[in-house]
Amino acid sequence: MSDSPFVPVEVPIEIDKSSPIPLYLQLAQSIQGAIDRGELAPGDRIENEVSLSRRLGVARPTVRQGIQELVDKGMLVRKRGVGTQVVESHVNRPMALTSLYDDLRESGKNPTTDVLEYRIAPADRQTASRLLLEEGAHVLELTRLRRIDGRPLALMRNVLPVEYAPSHAELSTTGLYDALREKGAKTAVAHERIGAVAATAEEAEVLGEEDGAPLLFMERKSFMDNGHALEYGYHLYRPSLYAFEVTLVNR
Amino acid sequence: MSDSPFVPVEVPIEIDKSSPIPLYLQLAQSIQGAIDRGELAPGDRIENEVSLSRRLGVARPTVRQGIQELVDKGMLVRKRGVGTQVVESHVNRPMALTSLYDDLRESGKNPTTDVLEYRIAPADRQTASRLLLEEGAHVLELTRLRRIDGRPLALMRNVLPVEYAPSHAELSTTGLYDALREKGAKTAVAHERIGAVAATAEEAEVLGEEDGAPLLFMERKSFMDNGHALEYGYHLYRPSLYAFEVTLVNR
Repeated sequence: MSDSPFVPVEVPIEIDKSSPIPLYLQLAQSIQGAIDRGELAPGDRIENEVSLSRRLGVARPTVRQGIQELVDKGMLVRKRGVGTQVVESHVNRPMALTSLYDDLRESGKNPTTDVLEYRIAPADRQTASRLLLEEGAHVLELTRLRRIDGRPLALMRNVLPVEYAPSHAELSTTGLYDALREKGAKTAVAHERIGAVAATAEEAEVLGEEDGAPLLFMERKSFMDNGHALEYGYHLYRPSLYAFEVTLVNR
Repeated sequence: MSDSPFVPVEVPIEIDKSSPIPLYLQLAQSIQGAIDRGELAPGDRIENEVSLSRRLGVARPTVRQGIQELVDKGMLVRKRGVGTQVVESHVNRPMALTSLYDDLRESGKNPTTDVLEYRIAPADRQTASRLLLEEGAHVLELTRLRRIDGRPLALMRNVLPVEYAPSHAELSTTGLYDALREKGAKTAVAHERIGAVAATAEEAEVLGEEDGAPLLFMERKSFMDNGHALEYGYHLYRPSLYAFEVTLVNR
């Protein structure tokens, strides 16, 4: 973190010219990493294009494109007469079998969890067929609100077989996947579906959105190595704060 | 396609018990494939769980879970006294470097394209930096409406260097990626971001949604083998008709 917003911050940037990842994207990811780790704070000014281009031995249009990538994501803003500044950051989450809690913690975002519902109940038919259980088998029905730096980010509903149920206390202080790993339950395969939906009045209130506001959803079914279902999840994210990211390579 | 909705349709289902993909998901994907290829039409009744379980040598709860997967996706509906029927289908699109047009055509959904804007213009600073061009270099600005079976599905904005610009006529009858391949321009790497956003009045009107309704967006930057930018895209999808799907495998 710099002392003054008017002194550009020189961040360590790693560029691998032999990688199939475009250079502009490597540059953007390096700067994003520095923001995530707190080496660049909101308001900090980053080095200008000429300086970055010279220091990294990368063409100036490539540098400009890398910065544009972060401007497009809402992580940097160009200001006339000031330069390019870091703004309040948005969560751009890679698609992978990682824990949102861990991802947020590693990126210095102070995740916290409010456990809104923690209920052990017999599975109805729909839940039983989602989790490959007998109808009436006991499951944990869980609703959590994930915050970053105190602000609501995601409303997460999960249901899982009772034998893997973490305690209420564990869920308040760690992520679900971490708590499951403690019980030796690890996801081998997950099937996810990502879409958009209008917030219900209740969801809107919890998330601090307007009734009917767009939300991003992720529905997930997770399985262990032995083929048993580990959990079903339906998570709602505030789109102003959260997006999914993926880099696709042909062949 | 069956003659009567009351005669269950027996579809070819391939199950590979040595695959890491859960059996329920293989079953769901087989039935989804049959719906996509038109072997199962809206209103068709599928075989019951007992019959599927016996025929495939798969446990009944697994069959039930496979069917639940498609019920959750809105592709099948359970009706008391009737059985499980195929409903008007929703596009659940795997994340991959494939063409939406091709994916829809292969799944028998009759995609069509209205070219709403086709304009060759000098790149502004933002476009130039997205596409790694000199400011003022000419680009094609393209806005298309993709329909399936006549219904609006997606509003697609793209911008690309003018040397790859397909003709207006080509874009009316094929997908952008197909048209680009005709010119020898092929995507090697794409970087995508997926989120949700409220429809503007104009977007809502074109897509047949309410003003402010939730839309799913996909922002994409595509690059060729030589590292040159091929296109920038910002696509909006109707969430009642479209979702992204991904299967993630640990390690």
